[in-house]
Amino acid sequence: MGTKEILEGYDKGNISITTVCSHSSLQIFNGARKEGFHTTGIAIRSPPRFYDAFPLGRPDEFFVIDDYKKMNKYAPRLREKNAIVIPHGSFVEYMGTKNFEKLELPIFGNRDVLEWESDRDKEREWLEGAGLEMPTVIEDPRDITKPVIVKYHGAKGGKGFFIAKNYDDFKKKIEKGKPYIIQEFMVGTRYYIHYFYSPISKDGYRVGKGTLQVMSVDRRDETNIDEAHRLGSISELEDMGIKPTFVVTGNIPIVMRESLLQKVFDMGERVIKKSYELFGGMIGPFCLETVVTEELKFKVFEISARIVAGTNVYMSGSPYADLIQPGLSTGQRIAQEIKMAIEKDKLEEVIT
Amino acid sequence: MGTKEILEGYDKGNISITTVCSHSSLQIFNGARKEGFHTTGIAIRSPPRFYDAFPLGRPDEFFVIDDYKKMNKYAPRLREKNAIVIPHGSFVEYMGTKNFEKLELPIFGNRDVLEWESDRDKEREWLEGAGLEMPTVIEDPRDITKPVIVKYHGAKGGKGFFIAKNYDDFKKKIEKGKPYIIQEFMVGTRYYIHYFYSPISKDGYRVGKGTLQVMSVDRRDETNIDEAHRLGSISELEDMGIKPTFVVTGNIPIVMRESLLQKVFDMGERVIKKSYELFGGMIGPFCLETVVTEELKFKVFEISARIVAGTNVYMSGSPYADLIQPGLSTGQRIAQEIKMAIEKDKLEEVIT
Amino acid sequence: MGTKEILEGYDKGNISITTVCSHSSLQIFNGARKEGFHTTGIAIRSPPRFYDAFPLGRPDEFFVIDDYKKMNKYAPRLREKNAIVIPHGSFVEYMGTKNFEKLELPIFGNRDVLEWESDRDKEREWLEGAGLEMPTVIEDPRDITKPVIVKYHGAKGGKGFFIAKNYDDFKKKIEKGKPYIIQEFMVGTRYYIHYFYSPISKDGYRVGKGTLQVMSVDRRDETNIDEAHRLGSISELEDMGIKPTFVVTGNIPIVMRESLLQKVFDMGERVIKKSYELFGGMIGPFCLETVVTEELKFKVFEISARIVAGTNVYMSGSPYADLIQPGLSTGQRIAQEIKMAIEKDKLEEVIT
Repeated sequence: MGTKEILEGYDKGNISITTVCSHSSLQIFNGARKEGFHTTGIAIRSPPRFYDAFPLGRPDEFFVIDDYKKMNKYAPRLREKNAIVIPHGSFVEYMGTKNFEKLELPIFGNRDVLEWESDRDKEREWLEGAGLEMPTVIEDPRDITKPVIVKYHGAKGGKGFFIAKNYDDFKKKIEKGKPYIIQEFMVGTRYYIHYFYSPISKDGYRVGKGTLQVMSVDRRDETNIDEAHRLGSISELEDMGIKPTFVVTGNIPIVMRESLLQKVFDMGERVIKKSYELFGGMIGPFCLETVVTEELKFKVFEISARIVAGTNVYMSGSPYADLIQPGLSTGQRIAQEIKMAIEKDKLEEVIT
Repeated sequence: MGTKEILEGYDKGNISITTVCSHSSLQIFNGARKEGFHTTGIAIRSPPRFYDAFPLGRPDEFFVIDDYKKMNKYAPRLREKNAIVIPHGSFVEYMGTKNFEKLELPIFGNRDVLEWESDRDKEREWLEGAGLEMPTVIEDPRDITKPVIVKYHGAKGGKGFFIAKNYDDFKKKIEKGKPYIIQEFMVGTRYYIHYFYSPISKDGYRVGKGTLQVMSVDRRDETNIDEAHRLGSISELEDMGIKPTFVVTGNIPIVMRESLLQKVFDMGERVIKKSYELFGGMIGPFCLETVVTEELKFKVFEISARIVAGTNVYMSGSPYADLIQPGLSTGQRIAQEIKMAIEKDKLEEVIT
Repeated sequence: MGTKEILEGYDKGNISITTVCSHSSLQIFNGARKEGFHTTGIAIRSPPRFYDAFPLGRPDEFFVIDDYKKMNKYAPRLREKNAIVIPHGSFVEYMGTKNFEKLELPIFGNRDVLEWESDRDKEREWLEGAGLEMPTVIEDPRDITKPVIVKYHGAKGGKGFFIAKNYDDFKKKIEKGKPYIIQEFMVGTRYYIHYFYSPISKDGYRVGKGTLQVMSVDRRDETNIDEAHRLGSISELEDMGIKPTFVVTGNIPIVMRESLLQKVFDMGERVIKKSYELFGGMIGPFCLETVVTEELKFKVFEISARIVAGTNVYMSGSPYADLIQPGLSTGQRIAQEIKMAIEKDKLEEVIT
């Protein structure tokens, strides 16, 4: 059943903002609530109890399923609730990319972005095609002449990543038989920039037929790499038998130098425009994960084409969002976009 | 004079929220003011002048004493003001544990928690008894086979703590004649989780006869360990004659991955339940000081059974508190609890 | 044309808060807007487009010039708009100190402070004269016996700074022919304290004839020094051919231990009083850039005598500012000061 057809059958006055209970769901439900929407939280077996502690982040209703991978079988019942799905990283991870792409529910954003984002080669084609600088890829480990980070394919949350200083170091650390990618290790300060692209808004920073916003910026906090220095340097830790790991555990608020902002918007604009060339455009929140070098250049090491958990830092506004509307979160911004699309009868332009 | 008797004599419509002028007192006074309470700030000799700069954090009245250790002699005059004391780390430290326990004033929270928290063995009995994982203790320094942190008994704010990599390193660094404890050094990201337990509220996340909240999370900022890496690794610094130190100077805001939240509530629940088994329960704010490992497990290295200074980051709400009530601080939450207890005629359930 | 004369000709009911579009201009315009002022943004050639994305940070009007160094030729047209200039770091840097000092426009604050702040010897005379502790200066590189930081004169944003551990290390790293200063490298936690001094307010923390406030505190985030530890220690990085750099890219929110606050106010007070002795006083926002040692002593390594970019973290209040007025930013505080000066007919006391 196609999204267009589903939307035609929806009662637009009774939309339920729906997502999986994890990742940034408290923020998504909170934002939807602020805009007056009904909310539905999808959970396995039984809803996590912790929502009881957060009355303003709790969904109006829980929808319990037995397996995320089989969500499609629940789609008819969710359609009865006029559900619009807000995707997030855990949502996609739990369901699996293929199942998510075929989900017979209206999804906020362009579901075609997934294949461009989840495949490292396509991601690079997109971002470098947009003129962004990415870390160099080293094809042959024998060519490692400066520090690199080695990432296994499909590894979640930085699990198993390692740093190698040269070929010998690489050989010592690589696990045989697992496909990997070798990237230049970029030394610099990390800024995770939270954007929002609306294809239907005309007021603001115009990009294509819509507008681009910067909502906030965070820095990921990764165990054990971000606090390992309290014990010793990475190589000293390795000598003690402790491997550096890159598993995300949280996020820290941060603001950038104001003089970097125009570059930040330029990057966002190029990424949006290229997304229209390649796959019909990216809609709603996205994040460029960057390192700023001493020449004040941005190197982009990844894109997330949906709401990122770093926005959870800004549940009630950020230094940037407050210049748009005091207290605005990315979760609320998503709800505003859906509301505006309903009012302008343009839901199909923000939902696929 | 017993607390029950004192409370009976109090004018419940004219309570004065009272604390020592330090630590988190600006937040406590500010929170009490928001809930309409009169406030009293206890100070030595003369009130710190800096309160003049913060009209919304200034107590209504200062109460000057000559020695924190002799606070009991001022108790009658404070009782005339219908004072309810909010304890914090400096309050207890300045008075001394023994004096604090005997203070003839109504104290918010259970004063019996002090002996369980200030004695490392009892603390471990409590937390491990609750099923929490703590860093391993090494009884004999000759058994040091991986990095450890050595803490002297009664050391304040991390003063004198040191890291040892093996027995030789330990021997070189230990000061003779001072009792110490040797703990496994946990490498991972530190999260200081600020909870609030209400034994009298029924709405929310139910634990025992009351409810549990997570108000916020911070990371402590310690000199010089947290910025030493700007000069070199810990061992390189030691070669330059600079010892790592762990003295708290401030706090940084942080949020955790949403998928960790249920574990966080589970830990809080177990700690509360065990506290009822052991000593009649813990009431109000408390903090679990944790490290998150690469397996996303929490290791708890300490508990603070009262408001911690890390909550000062969140004077006007946090990403978590804003989901309870926009702008809510732990200081205000304390005042709300006392207000609710007065309204329900249950002061004795939150005050000892 | 003198400032007094200019102000006499101004329509005080139609002041335009004016600054260069960079650094902290979003905050300055946002703050002025909150206080009801008209705002003017000075830009080269054409206004940066990014303001379109921030309706509450956008100036009412852009004023396009061709060269910051020649701003004085535009002064007459800006005077027609009743412009009061808010200086910031980029403003002064773009114009040049000499041009700025001679600018024929009313400037918020005392323009004489510039020469005391931009000359390292005078800065030291001022701060040490005020009783503040600064890092030791090593006159002769052969006297380097502990880690030092070497700063080239006039270097912007930490560019080119390096750490040397001894004389040999110094010789290896120094660029010949460039004047430099050698300072003790202070290991400790960095706190950038944002003050505000009003010479015309009577309510609050009295200093001289006015009042002193602490608005907020941040930590600068510098590439690559602040994240270099993810790869290795500084000396290990140098072995890999990567030099530590100190280029500011952003700011992180932080709060200090409450027990440090009185020292913080004492430092601010002494700096203000000394500024009156030396050059007629410092007015409005300023920042002490400090390191806190394990003895909880502040070492001050620099002063900025105007709004610093670290205040951008606090566009909608800070844990300290919220105790003055909920949501107050330094940008808004500046606007309040000008408003109060107009109301009290004391503009000349805050403007030069």
